[in-house]
Amino acid sequence: MATAEQEMYPRKILDYMEGFLVSKTLFAACELGVFEQLHASERPLSAGELAERLRSSEDGTARLLSACVGLELLTAHTNTDSQVVYSNTEMSTVFLTQSSPKSLYHSIQYSSRTIYLCWHYLTDAVREGKNQYEKAFGINSKDLFEAMYRSNEEMLKFMQLMNSIWNICGQDVVTTFDLSPFKCIYDLGGCSGALAKQCVSAYPQSTVTIFDLPKVVQMSREHFVSAQDSQISFYEGDFFKDALPVADLYILARILHDWTDQRNLELLTKVYQSCRPGGGVLLVESLLHEDHTGPLTAQLYSLNMLVQTEGRERTGSEYTSLLTAAGFTNVQIHRTGKIYDAILACK
Amino acid sequence: MATAEQEMYPRKILDYMEGFLVSKTLFAACELGVFEQLHASERPLSAGELAERLRSSEDGTARLLSACVGLELLTAHTNTDSQVVYSNTEMSTVFLTQSSPKSLYHSIQYSSRTIYLCWHYLTDAVREGKNQYEKAFGINSKDLFEAMYRSNEEMLKFMQLMNSIWNICGQDVVTTFDLSPFKCIYDLGGCSGALAKQCVSAYPQSTVTIFDLPKVVQMSREHFVSAQDSQISFYEGDFFKDALPVADLYILARILHDWTDQRNLELLTKVYQSCRPGGGVLLVESLLHEDHTGPLTAQLYSLNMLVQTEGRERTGSEYTSLLTAAGFTNVQIHRTGKIYDAILACK
Repeated sequence: MATAEQEMYPRKILDYMEGFLVSKTLFAACELGVFEQLHASERPLSAGELAERLRSSEDGTARLLSACVGLELLTAHTNTDSQVVYSNTEMSTVFLTQSSPKSLYHSIQYSSRTIYLCWHYLTDAVREGKNQYEKAFGINSKDLFEAMYRSNEEMLKFMQLMNSIWNICGQDVVTTFDLSPFKCIYDLGGCSGALAKQCVSAYPQSTVTIFDLPKVVQMSREHFVSAQDSQISFYEGDFFKDALPVADLYILARILHDWTDQRNLELLTKVYQSCRPGGGVLLVESLLHEDHTGPLTAQLYSLNMLVQTEGRERTGSEYTSLLTAAGFTNVQIHRTGKIYDAILACK
Repeated sequence: MATAEQEMYPRKILDYMEGFLVSKTLFAACELGVFEQLHASERPLSAGELAERLRSSEDGTARLLSACVGLELLTAHTNTDSQVVYSNTEMSTVFLTQSSPKSLYHSIQYSSRTIYLCWHYLTDAVREGKNQYEKAFGINSKDLFEAMYRSNEEMLKFMQLMNSIWNICGQDVVTTFDLSPFKCIYDLGGCSGALAKQCVSAYPQSTVTIFDLPKVVQMSREHFVSAQDSQISFYEGDFFKDALPVADLYILARILHDWTDQRNLELLTKVYQSCRPGGGVLLVESLLHEDHTGPLTAQLYSLNMLVQTEGRERTGSEYTSLLTAAGFTNVQIHRTGKIYDAILACK
């Protein structure tokens, strides 16, 4: 008797079970410098040649390259010496080499080294309803950014992560709404300045001030923003503790998702009070559907916020409630169809 | 100037980066007992009700359930009290509840707790060309199965893993070829007996003897095979060290992928010598395409063998070479289209 049950094959579940194998294959190839070496080479390379340049085992390298072909991150062909040789796809060159302006390299490094380990404790996070920094890294997370910025090295890694996401999503979120009326813009928690750069490039008449913790500002000056970025300046402070300067527009990109409703309302109220009349606030977040049934990325990110922060991802209505409770009006929500969406509200 | 590069959005790479989030969402839902509780309940449950039964935080549970809806592992609907309630999909009931005969529960547990941690060291495995048991678990892996069976608890977990894979792939691999001419069958490394059960169910005239290490046999008798399984018996031994009994057919299911070519040739030669003339050997493995360009699952499993064992996944030709070098002839290869394929060879 062939029942439906006997016929059913759980392809989807098996794919989900393989998800972490896929992630780590990509991460290891990046970390070892596979895409970098293939990009630097003038011709496709064999597994043996790559292993030599990467100082990795030939057997392990051959298996990794073959899996990258399966993932369509590399192409393989047989050369005139009947040797299998590998080259980058266009997508890998653009997004996986370290030097590319659209590089996701640092995002991948952070996912592989930090987020992957935190997620090992997802079950505990769901059980306890709190982040797992202590279990994963032995670090008290009472002050979240004290924990995340526990060393200059960790801080730099985090800033590079932020940088690499705006490389691919930044332009969309700053051009979704016409921000040209706002001349004086503050990017609260502006970090490495990647979004500030996208902003001044789209609005040459505006200036953007990166408001962040003193040590972040110092790192940003040293590693990310140069004197040539003449429309960008810095302001050192803690937006929960210090007064905010007056501005036409405040950008809060991936800030509110780190915190509870209560802290967010506190922050937005402060922003509203400092905001010039006629000015506004731009939120950049990954929005959940109103009924929470998707998008999958926002659902997963909301679990990521549970595992790593005090916050969550929210729906458009939830952000609207926070904004209107703080005094803002005329809330406009725009979904980009990519990871990050944009919300503009006015004073 | 809009170049192709500016327009390109790395959807595929971002999906790969999320792979481990997807895996761990599934794993946590299983581990917490979400599918079990929903199956036991006579009606759909809200996040609050589930959290209470699972003794987990309501907030964390709600986020997890919402991500499971995004993954199509659960369905959500709004009940007459305007409350969102959740129920299992048919696929989740069949494959994700612990008591189902097709349950993948133990496979998922093993992936989540053991394989996930081993894969954190994939980069090192590729660099060094060897497994990462020592780094991941502080265990010397010189004797692989000594390491994997380091405690009764670990051994049981591994046996449950084996069991759960044959729940979904076992029937295909034993019915791919007509094995009815083989009356006396030995399943070398037969472990929990799941494949033996599939085999005697398909061939009621045959008997299957599970050949495995004494402690595995003991565990198998205690937990997996009962007196009712009258066509199944046991034989205690180490197939590398001890003589093999005479038989019509030897099954080697996911055995050769653990070892080097040299050890496999040694083992297959021993099998050939013990095999009754007219008898044969059935290999069950996940086969790579001849040019190693796929299937992705076999490529990933080959990396898994690197991270965890001394072996690799192989192509049909590679297995054929080993079989013919040991003396076998008439090698027939059959791909099932699922995870595990089958190879039959004759003496």
